[in-house]
Amino acid sequence: MKWSAVITACGTSLLLLAFTTQAAHTARPTDLQAQVDAYRAQHESAIVARLDELARFKSVAADPAGIAAAADRLEALLKERGFDARQLSAGTGGPPIVFGTLEVANAKRTVIFYAHYDGQPVTPSQWSSDPFIPLMRSGPINGSEHEIDWKNAHGAFDPEWRLFARAVSDDKASIAAFLTAFDALQATHKSPSVNIKVLWEGEEEAGSPHLAEILRNNRGLLAADLILVGDGPVHQTRRPMIYFGARGVTGLDATLYGPLRALHDGHYGNWVPNPAAMAATLIAQMRDDSGRILIPGFADGIRALTADEQLALLNLPPIDDDLKREFGIGRSEGNEQLAESLMRPALNIRGIRSGQVGESAANAIPTTAVISIDFRLVPDQTPAAVRTAFERFLRANAWTVVDGEPDLATRLKYPRLIKLQWESGYPAFRADLSAPVSKAVIAAAGKAAASPVVVVPMVGGSVPLYEFADVLQMPVIGVPIVNHDNGQHAANENLRLKNLWDGIDTYAALLAQLQW
Amino acid sequence: MKWSAVITACGTSLLLLAFTTQAAHTARPTDLQAQVDAYRAQHESAIVARLDELARFKSVAADPAGIAAAADRLEALLKERGFDARQLSAGTGGPPIVFGTLEVANAKRTVIFYAHYDGQPVTPSQWSSDPFIPLMRSGPINGSEHEIDWKNAHGAFDPEWRLFARAVSDDKASIAAFLTAFDALQATHKSPSVNIKVLWEGEEEAGSPHLAEILRNNRGLLAADLILVGDGPVHQTRRPMIYFGARGVTGLDATLYGPLRALHDGHYGNWVPNPAAMAATLIAQMRDDSGRILIPGFADGIRALTADEQLALLNLPPIDDDLKREFGIGRSEGNEQLAESLMRPALNIRGIRSGQVGESAANAIPTTAVISIDFRLVPDQTPAAVRTAFERFLRANAWTVVDGEPDLATRLKYPRLIKLQWESGYPAFRADLSAPVSKAVIAAAGKAAASPVVVVPMVGGSVPLYEFADVLQMPVIGVPIVNHDNGQHAANENLRLKNLWDGIDTYAALLAQLQW
Repeated sequence: MKWSAVITACGTSLLLLAFTTQAAHTARPTDLQAQVDAYRAQHESAIVARLDELARFKSVAADPAGIAAAADRLEALLKERGFDARQLSAGTGGPPIVFGTLEVANAKRTVIFYAHYDGQPVTPSQWSSDPFIPLMRSGPINGSEHEIDWKNAHGAFDPEWRLFARAVSDDKASIAAFLTAFDALQATHKSPSVNIKVLWEGEEEAGSPHLAEILRNNRGLLAADLILVGDGPVHQTRRPMIYFGARGVTGLDATLYGPLRALHDGHYGNWVPNPAAMAATLIAQMRDDSGRILIPGFADGIRALTADEQLALLNLPPIDDDLKREFGIGRSEGNEQLAESLMRPALNIRGIRSGQVGESAANAIPTTAVISIDFRLVPDQTPAAVRTAFERFLRANAWTVVDGEPDLATRLKYPRLIKLQWESGYPAFRADLSAPVSKAVIAAAGKAAASPVVVVPMVGGSVPLYEFADVLQMPVIGVPIVNHDNGQHAANENLRLKNLWDGIDTYAALLAQLQW
Repeated sequence: MKWSAVITACGTSLLLLAFTTQAAHTARPTDLQAQVDAYRAQHESAIVARLDELARFKSVAADPAGIAAAADRLEALLKERGFDARQLSAGTGGPPIVFGTLEVANAKRTVIFYAHYDGQPVTPSQWSSDPFIPLMRSGPINGSEHEIDWKNAHGAFDPEWRLFARAVSDDKASIAAFLTAFDALQATHKSPSVNIKVLWEGEEEAGSPHLAEILRNNRGLLAADLILVGDGPVHQTRRPMIYFGARGVTGLDATLYGPLRALHDGHYGNWVPNPAAMAATLIAQMRDDSGRILIPGFADGIRALTADEQLALLNLPPIDDDLKREFGIGRSEGNEQLAESLMRPALNIRGIRSGQVGESAANAIPTTAVISIDFRLVPDQTPAAVRTAFERFLRANAWTVVDGEPDLATRLKYPRLIKLQWESGYPAFRADLSAPVSKAVIAAAGKAAASPVVVVPMVGGSVPLYEFADVLQMPVIGVPIVNHDNGQHAANENLRLKNLWDGIDTYAALLAQLQW
């Protein structure tokens, strides 16, 4: 960390000079990887400590103070490294984007490194340990794992260890890998091959409602040739992965209304409408047993896969049978391979809640049912069109859509009331995986990797690739690093250390060797 | 309470003597009602205090100690009144029945007074006050009510006041009304017209799993000519009501399995089966939008209504429009009147739970969905036949039924796993509403009432009438007293004082004037 200290003391110009003077040291790929690995091996404890520190920030939508504290710390971490860093906010509010820029002498290309520092909401009761007090375990939670006192461990860390905390892998690991890769290059006197911009978002898990506005308002600041997105997991084979698209997303909570108060279901069952049953009927009308979406007009405007994309799908390593075993499922929902099924839009039921179950179940007709839904979109669907199709479908099925709690007069007037609370969202995106820049990224990542890079036309998860491509008009490519079995979006989210180590190699290669 | 004290001190023989010596005092109906009303007016605070005391016992299935304490207290209350009282338990366990018997000189008939002292489960977070600390309010909770410090109130209690607590109306009010009616007869030197047996059950809300066994084991003790069941609410017009049948019930919790851990629904949505969606599909397959049950064979053996029963239905006061306004519903589930719809079996969804909704919703495929169901049965369906039909229906729809948590091998082998946890239940019952004993009960209750008695062939709620009729081979008739809008089985259960006052009159008339 000596070099960082010098930068902090002397400002950016010295750093740029340093990179410039080191520009001649274009190491052979294996040299770079070996040197980065050596750096990492010497600093394992400090690298994990950085991630541990970031994971302790409660940077979730429910905790604006936690978001703000994380943003301040990330801005400071960039400034310590000589970046011109600041926070960008939308005029309409929302968590800030942490933005940093670092010019590199003789670099002709500029690359934006994107990740998000906010995490999914947590239900602490479902976690085996506090979501915001990172805990190292010897492996996944499967009954044979044990806790690791990594701060007092001697020798190299076992790469199968996993650090458990909310957002540790989605996406704070990408941020930690970027910072470490940058530090490793400095320590080994390697200059980046590109000008660097950093864009760390604070509300991706809330659907990025302010991202487009911030991008539009800062087009000059964000001028670049490529955006690399450090979100999402690598392939289930644990091989490194590059992806060229991502499904879009939009979501909502729908509340269906039964009686004003819960009513004895013996005295009123068959006569008072049961909102839990209404919710079930509605879901079954929207989505068949194999996951196909039945909402008329929902599929309008879906773009077909290109021949290259279809070929890429065929070249993906087979994983379905392994995943079924890992997930404990005796079937998949439809008849397709996983990769194929992710090329379709999805209607996911994230949750449904009505009345009580188990010991708490009373023999009563519940007052409401709440369904939490997200739609995963594919090119060229838009959230607005999906919303329109969904609401039209509801009206065609005799529902009256409201956006607030209905009063008594409204309840009596309309026999089927549904309250919709929409989240913002964004469309899907698929880039040209045969373009020169695409090949350059695959090549750079490949140099850092021990096994062939998996090329995915579009991942099933949503990252706001479309917003970047649409507003900034530049290629967007995904370079994920975390393990697929990270519990992302669920309880006990975790990062496998080997993925962090490999991710540092990948980021170092992308920083030092990317050119096209 | 002076008379009770004498009884307690001197034992049963004195009481019997007292009743015998008072037998000549056969008051005219209006006299009896006036005298009971006067007694009640003088003892309002003590009567409410008795109910308050009973409602503080946590006599719910989840609290065996609360059940036991309530049973002990009820036994003592009977003994204080000269009853030969004891607790009857099943060999296979379960809460005790509190049983008491009191012979009356010259009485030729014996009547069993049934009620249950257990209550529905509670979800305290949904209550406006502690479910086991009774609170008096000026009326229903509608924003204009206020709390009443009844212990320090002067003058007559407002009969529209309501006491809020779990089980206060279902059925502890019936127990309190019986005890007060008995005390009023003693105080006014009226002798009962029948020998009295009391049967207070402790697990009706759990489906009465041990009732039949206890009845079978105590046939001699329970010999009688009639059972009067003090369960359920009176008619929604607030007129007194007698019912001659009740729907049966059985229920279950069904758990449907998705992946072993919650999975990111972007990366796996469309491929990993979503248990919330599976639950919705299953419910929609079982039950159409108007509440009709679609399970093949479910309706086998349903007995048609007699002409008298159909006539009784036609004679019921119209209430549907008022109820829709009261419940804030813009329609009923089907196209029938409420009373008609209760003559059919019902499939009620008591609750459904999967994943999370609202702020806590993560973009994840949930691991399980739990559906809590109860079936309301009509003559001559049986719980066993319903269970068989339901499980056959599941198998026909490719489900594998398990009764415990499936292991990994089971999960991988069977693509659709459903765990069923059945509650015990009992069949429906409809008695002959034209029999002499039926007419006698209607007549006695009518003498105590200010408005005509509503005669209902079968109520929608379930009371174990069938068990009594089947095991003990005697008529079973329902004499409810509590308000229909009591929040029974839901949060904020309450008793309207006027219903308790009227119920005391009804029980006094049934005790002192019933003869056939």
